[in-house]
Amino acid sequence: MGLRLRFIAVELTETEIKAVRYTRDAVPEARLVLPMAEDRDVDLALRRLRSAILQVWPEPSQTVAGIGVAVPALFDYRRGLILDAPDAWPREALSLRAFLTTAFDVPVFVGGLMELIALAEYRFGAGQGTGNLIYLHVGRQIGGGIVVDGTLFTGGNGLGGKLGHMTVEASGPPCRCGNRGCLERYASGEALLAEAAAALQAGEPSALGARPLTLAALVAAAKEGDALARRLIARAGRYLGIAAVDLIYLFNPQRFVFGGELVQAGDALLTPLREIVIERAAPLYREGVLLQRAALGEDAGLLGALAYLLTELRVKIDLV
Amino acid sequence: MGLRLRFIAVELTETEIKAVRYTRDAVPEARLVLPMAEDRDVDLALRRLRSAILQVWPEPSQTVAGIGVAVPALFDYRRGLILDAPDAWPREALSLRAFLTTAFDVPVFVGGLMELIALAEYRFGAGQGTGNLIYLHVGRQIGGGIVVDGTLFTGGNGLGGKLGHMTVEASGPPCRCGNRGCLERYASGEALLAEAAAALQAGEPSALGARPLTLAALVAAAKEGDALARRLIARAGRYLGIAAVDLIYLFNPQRFVFGGELVQAGDALLTPLREIVIERAAPLYREGVLLQRAALGEDAGLLGALAYLLTELRVKIDLV
Repeated sequence: MGLRLRFIAVELTETEIKAVRYTRDAVPEARLVLPMAEDRDVDLALRRLRSAILQVWPEPSQTVAGIGVAVPALFDYRRGLILDAPDAWPREALSLRAFLTTAFDVPVFVGGLMELIALAEYRFGAGQGTGNLIYLHVGRQIGGGIVVDGTLFTGGNGLGGKLGHMTVEASGPPCRCGNRGCLERYASGEALLAEAAAALQAGEPSALGARPLTLAALVAAAKEGDALARRLIARAGRYLGIAAVDLIYLFNPQRFVFGGELVQAGDALLTPLREIVIERAAPLYREGVLLQRAALGEDAGLLGALAYLLTELRVKIDLV
Repeated sequence: MGLRLRFIAVELTETEIKAVRYTRDAVPEARLVLPMAEDRDVDLALRRLRSAILQVWPEPSQTVAGIGVAVPALFDYRRGLILDAPDAWPREALSLRAFLTTAFDVPVFVGGLMELIALAEYRFGAGQGTGNLIYLHVGRQIGGGIVVDGTLFTGGNGLGGKLGHMTVEASGPPCRCGNRGCLERYASGEALLAEAAAALQAGEPSALGARPLTLAALVAAAKEGDALARRLIARAGRYLGIAAVDLIYLFNPQRFVFGGELVQAGDALLTPLREIVIERAAPLYREGVLLQRAALGEDAGLLGALAYLLTELRVKIDLV
């Protein structure tokens, strides 16, 4: 029986619906990508979602244990609700779990993309071999997830584990979230691009002036040794390290995994990050804590949906 | 059988050994206090500890379910070890659990005082009715504990939940812990006393100049309306609020409980604390989160030892 169990993972992006059928060992057997519906057409979006899943559904000789769905959204894990999602999506699509449960009559688990990537790295990526890790995603914004004893940590009200808006400079500038001096104001791609633009405007010489200012350009310039790009990325690394020190004292994880576009800069980001952790965290707390790069690539979100499905099925019905 | 179960709680301080026999409803039935041994005499200290427990031990018709011990120490919850304790204690006394288990042949659970007070407030004090709370103790130093789903949160390596050294100003002054701009540098009794001394030195008029500079004097002066004392305590409140905002995003607790000497200042501390949480934390996260004063008094440590014993017995042997 166990060998014939299959798992459907779905990742929704702003523009696409991806569905994959996996074995329990995370071997993909079928894969389909459809465009998200245009013009917020909720019926069309749900029809396409249903169609994508049907097209990766297995033969009757195999059993689907459940469907896991990763959404780029703020997710309330206590109430099981999508609270916020890309503007391009129809609002009615937020009741995803009810729709899929009715349509397919199997257990359905929905979660936020960043948190589910944390679970994916824990189960299939850089976190293998540990039960306690923190994943920090450094892209245009900062997100992540916290895995405690092999399960996603979501806090007392189901909204915990939000890493981007930790205070690093209480007297710092306001953030759109309402807080001041958040990590995201110092270490996110958006913050770095704004500072790069200001520096170029002020006449600082940099290879960045010659091309459109994107995160990829910033990372490439840092790798080529551009002083401005390296300075900005090193500063982001230091602030990520400062956040890591706080997280070591609070969560005492065995491992940190860093993913997202800015982490492509490699040591330009990770060396200052590691240095400040060593400088500021007491040895008793930080010794043995690994700081490493994410191992998963484009399928991290789908693998996250699979990992969440496997975790929740094991917890809830002891099936897998 | 259940009605005849009794629970021994022990609290060690720098100078005393306290032992109480409790019913499972936290009714104290017998109580003894002995002085801690002088001159780091480990044999004498352990003899006195054994004697204190024996003197509150019940009649044979009752059964002792276990012994809980609160120590003012850094405790490693994964390995079950006291890592650091008052200088006045004999170092050999750190193997407390082994000694008590051998001496009394019942389950023994040892924990750090601050974390155990968090459990006490959760079970018997201001946290009743919630499963998720954070206790912040603001005395000369800052400590506390995190209760998640009714149990003590100790992180991946058993050293998590340390609240005093969260970074609030990454560019702030160094702390003895190795970090910079820790909460403790801005909001602890020690920090406030140092700043009060500096302000008096600089000639700032204050009622504080007329008496020995202690935490109790600072709290009393604030209550009497002294401008310097109120300013310092308000600033501590704001920084505690900033830490609370971070903890809301990370742990999403249902309740904060504030205890310790500085909290005696009441609204002078708690009003600025509440204001900054409302100002800086997004409504979705902070709504419904209560910020309140600790309810337990002098016996908080003993009740913490009892709460930890009850929690661990239930988790481990399903007895209570």
